[in-house]
Amino acid sequence: METKAKVLIDCQDAKGLVYRISKVFFDNDLNIDNNREFVDKSAEKFFMRTVVTGQFEPHELEEELREVLPANADLRVILPKRKKIILLVTKESHALGDILIRHADGELEADIEAVIGNHNTLEELVCKFNIPFMHIPAEGYSREEHEENVMQVIDALEFDYLVLAKYMRILTPAFVGKYEKRIINIHHSFLPAFIGANPYKQAYDRGVKIIGATAHFVTNDLDEGPIIAQDVIPVNHRFSWKDMQRAGRDGEKIVLSRALNLVLHDRVFVHGNKTIIF
Amino acid sequence: METKAKVLIDCQDAKGLVYRISKVFFDNDLNIDNNREFVDKSAEKFFMRTVVTGQFEPHELEEELREVLPANADLRVILPKRKKIILLVTKESHALGDILIRHADGELEADIEAVIGNHNTLEELVCKFNIPFMHIPAEGYSREEHEENVMQVIDALEFDYLVLAKYMRILTPAFVGKYEKRIINIHHSFLPAFIGANPYKQAYDRGVKIIGATAHFVTNDLDEGPIIAQDVIPVNHRFSWKDMQRAGRDGEKIVLSRALNLVLHDRVFVHGNKTIIF
Amino acid sequence: METKAKVLIDCQDAKGLVYRISKVFFDNDLNIDNNREFVDKSAEKFFMRTVVTGQFEPHELEEELREVLPANADLRVILPKRKKIILLVTKESHALGDILIRHADGELEADIEAVIGNHNTLEELVCKFNIPFMHIPAEGYSREEHEENVMQVIDALEFDYLVLAKYMRILTPAFVGKYEKRIINIHHSFLPAFIGANPYKQAYDRGVKIIGATAHFVTNDLDEGPIIAQDVIPVNHRFSWKDMQRAGRDGEKIVLSRALNLVLHDRVFVHGNKTIIF
Amino acid sequence: METKAKVLIDCQDAKGLVYRISKVFFDNDLNIDNNREFVDKSAEKFFMRTVVTGQFEPHELEEELREVLPANADLRVILPKRKKIILLVTKESHALGDILIRHADGELEADIEAVIGNHNTLEELVCKFNIPFMHIPAEGYSREEHEENVMQVIDALEFDYLVLAKYMRILTPAFVGKYEKRIINIHHSFLPAFIGANPYKQAYDRGVKIIGATAHFVTNDLDEGPIIAQDVIPVNHRFSWKDMQRAGRDGEKIVLSRALNLVLHDRVFVHGNKTIIF
Repeated sequence: METKAKVLIDCQDAKGLVYRISKVFFDNDLNIDNNREFVDKSAEKFFMRTVVTGQFEPHELEEELREVLPANADLRVILPKRKKIILLVTKESHALGDILIRHADGELEADIEAVIGNHNTLEELVCKFNIPFMHIPAEGYSREEHEENVMQVIDALEFDYLVLAKYMRILTPAFVGKYEKRIINIHHSFLPAFIGANPYKQAYDRGVKIIGATAHFVTNDLDEGPIIAQDVIPVNHRFSWKDMQRAGRDGEKIVLSRALNLVLHDRVFVHGNKTIIF
Repeated sequence: METKAKVLIDCQDAKGLVYRISKVFFDNDLNIDNNREFVDKSAEKFFMRTVVTGQFEPHELEEELREVLPANADLRVILPKRKKIILLVTKESHALGDILIRHADGELEADIEAVIGNHNTLEELVCKFNIPFMHIPAEGYSREEHEENVMQVIDALEFDYLVLAKYMRILTPAFVGKYEKRIINIHHSFLPAFIGANPYKQAYDRGVKIIGATAHFVTNDLDEGPIIAQDVIPVNHRFSWKDMQRAGRDGEKIVLSRALNLVLHDRVFVHGNKTIIF
Repeated sequence: METKAKVLIDCQDAKGLVYRISKVFFDNDLNIDNNREFVDKSAEKFFMRTVVTGQFEPHELEEELREVLPANADLRVILPKRKKIILLVTKESHALGDILIRHADGELEADIEAVIGNHNTLEELVCKFNIPFMHIPAEGYSREEHEENVMQVIDALEFDYLVLAKYMRILTPAFVGKYEKRIINIHHSFLPAFIGANPYKQAYDRGVKIIGATAHFVTNDLDEGPIIAQDVIPVNHRFSWKDMQRAGRDGEKIVLSRALNLVLHDRVFVHGNKTIIF
Repeated sequence: METKAKVLIDCQDAKGLVYRISKVFFDNDLNIDNNREFVDKSAEKFFMRTVVTGQFEPHELEEELREVLPANADLRVILPKRKKIILLVTKESHALGDILIRHADGELEADIEAVIGNHNTLEELVCKFNIPFMHIPAEGYSREEHEENVMQVIDALEFDYLVLAKYMRILTPAFVGKYEKRIINIHHSFLPAFIGANPYKQAYDRGVKIIGATAHFVTNDLDEGPIIAQDVIPVNHRFSWKDMQRAGRDGEKIVLSRALNLVLHDRVFVHGNKTIIF
């Protein structure tokens, strides 16, 4: 029976890598449906994403590949399997709603295991879609206590990615460290402009002519994680900061959904504080 | 004989302003070719740009208008007259070249009085277009001495605007203050991201997916002056910072020329650290 | 008590119009919150949209304004009142879903009276939001019979605009004529490129590097009505036409919602086969 | 001594191609600096562009590669060598000027052998840059006679590409056929919208909200050749068609220069009426 797999390789660059890897595919009589590589010369790093089809045993393929790769290579052979995500939200519905509609439509290639809100504002919306909503209040708790409560819930579920769909809380290093490269956030500005609170107010005060949105992996440096996708929206002097916020929401939700789509298709490699997008 | 004028008003907002102003136009039997207004409610400021045609004496029109405007109104009645600009450059030719070609074509509605370079790299290019190039070296001079030399040259010429077409030097408060609202700069980033030196290197290091360019009036706060125009260019992980720089230059020159065009057509009001663009 | 109204004027251009209109506002002691005008010189047409506040009787204001306007002026004094819309859909959920989420959020400044589908695919989604869904099948009916059934339903409801949110049927001249300037459509291409069926397939076959979406008023000429808003999305050779369709949907929904927002705020004048957007 | 070459392959798709090709590189001890592939599944076509460095004899490498490729493969091993271009122009200076400035700056990686105008309007501009300008008038000649005159001139020169920098004449099939895949044109619209004469007038009449520019290879179907690059510029109801033309010129010149840059770096494969851009 035909199997399809995505082979992801992230390793030290070396002469002959493409040859050695493609030889493994060839020796296994695999078809290459899609292949993309990138070499970061300055960092001497090699990245490759190949979609192969054929009759093969994944673990054996992985072993054969590992033999031709440098030590410490990050190698993944990913079989078709629906991914699972958990959404964290606060009060704003646009980014969440965009994902819910895509999910209901079957367009989102992931199951939403749960939506967790530090407020219950969005419970009604989520429940329309028969997805579990959990209200885990933050008020009255220390940051650590609140995250402890969140972790108890999410760790009881299986998930691939945490999606911060306008989650208006800062995560502790402990939390971020635990789910490294698995937390995706949408920041409501064109990073690195307007880091921090109320970027639309900042943008208004600065008098910019374009606003933006940035989807990124969350790291311990606030708003400094590897950027996955960005987009911009023109504004002018007639926009109040509320108008900018309203206009910016369209950008936020589209950029977050685009980034999520890239991540769910295993098209994103994290490379230091940057991303390689295939 | 028909006269055409742009009437620019920047004043405290007040009830009946549009009526009173349009009454003056009406009483003078003027045609309104084009009219744009903006009220900044929070600042209680009124901005208006009207193009009128008819038979009138400009000074009388100005006087009549001043009578119906609040005290301290900034009122200008601008008659058709070719503006004069001086360009300041360093070594890069793209922004300068774009302006020179537009000028040679008759598209730029201004005369270029001179191009001043702190290096002589661009002398050959400028001279092709029969425009005076002056090399005013900065090396071996204090910042103040160098600016003194520049001022001697430009003050001997008549000009409306100084255009910094990739002029890679920081101006002193004294210089900036002397030519307030008359110095236009192109910054090679999407401000306020990447203020300061080598924004492309900064953008590369940050791993952004979009780079930008910003044309702004120069004030004493470095890269903080009122923004006139901005634009962006998509990039990806395959761009080195040199590639970003190369791609970014297209944005820089187009944004600078667009901003210059707006300013030359008296479409830009400076309002605090922002602009109103009509 | 303070009243707020939008005054919309569309008439033959004439000298002194701004003066005469603003005099009416002044004589009624009204504040002008916002004012935009446009004169189409070649067509000698004048357009104005003014937001006024003050103590006034709307009908009296309208009468006073009519006295100073040319005969046959199209004048509307619009008081704050929530508008009503009806959505027509077929099977795709993205444009509909975007509007439903905005509606649920309170962001959409209109009530959705009903959603009508020629298929029942979207009934489940609509019902989640407690909005009436009506399935009016087209199969087995002539075009005229089907539209007759639609008209019976919508004429029994009150509505300001019909929004075709990916309604995949062509309307007859009779239907279009009955609801002139009140039907908004989203076309899944950058009009006038790729008029007609399956624009993404056409775009793919043509090998374009950018795809688009166009929101427009529906007229009898298929895909030829006045354009309200357009946007574009970059594509490349790696996109199948299905990929283009998927990517294009984001543009479609955003452009439709943006156009709908403009129309609901009375910012759109239809001027022949064009629009004036204030 | 180290040699660097671009290896371009365009052939029937087959299992093991990447392996066989990379084996050749490996056996020759070459480094792969950059590698991009694309398979068009529906057409069963394979495209590859690889930059290799090492010690090799180009003809031997080509022979070895040809042995592992399907029959009729289009294979090119391109050594670093400055390309030569000839520009054809009419009266407008913006696209020409942009290329001249880049050339003078050293940014354009090609030599301009000559500029040929069917008018002499641009002679003065070209001569500033010490590039031969030839005036080959079209008036008073049949289309065939005129092209005969052009061919005599260009065939006496060596060149890689003909660049139509706003050349406002239609070429005959004979001319186009002679220089297949070597003629690049900039069309002043977002193709396929507004094919033919005066696209800005057409765009104005249609009331579009975005205008565009398209760089493409010239084929016998007017404005139907494979698209290399496109870009767009927002417009609104205040733009006359002359304003659109003025704004559009910025797009035209940037898109043409971007397409030219791609072509000069051998990044463009023609695939039927489409392009693959690596």
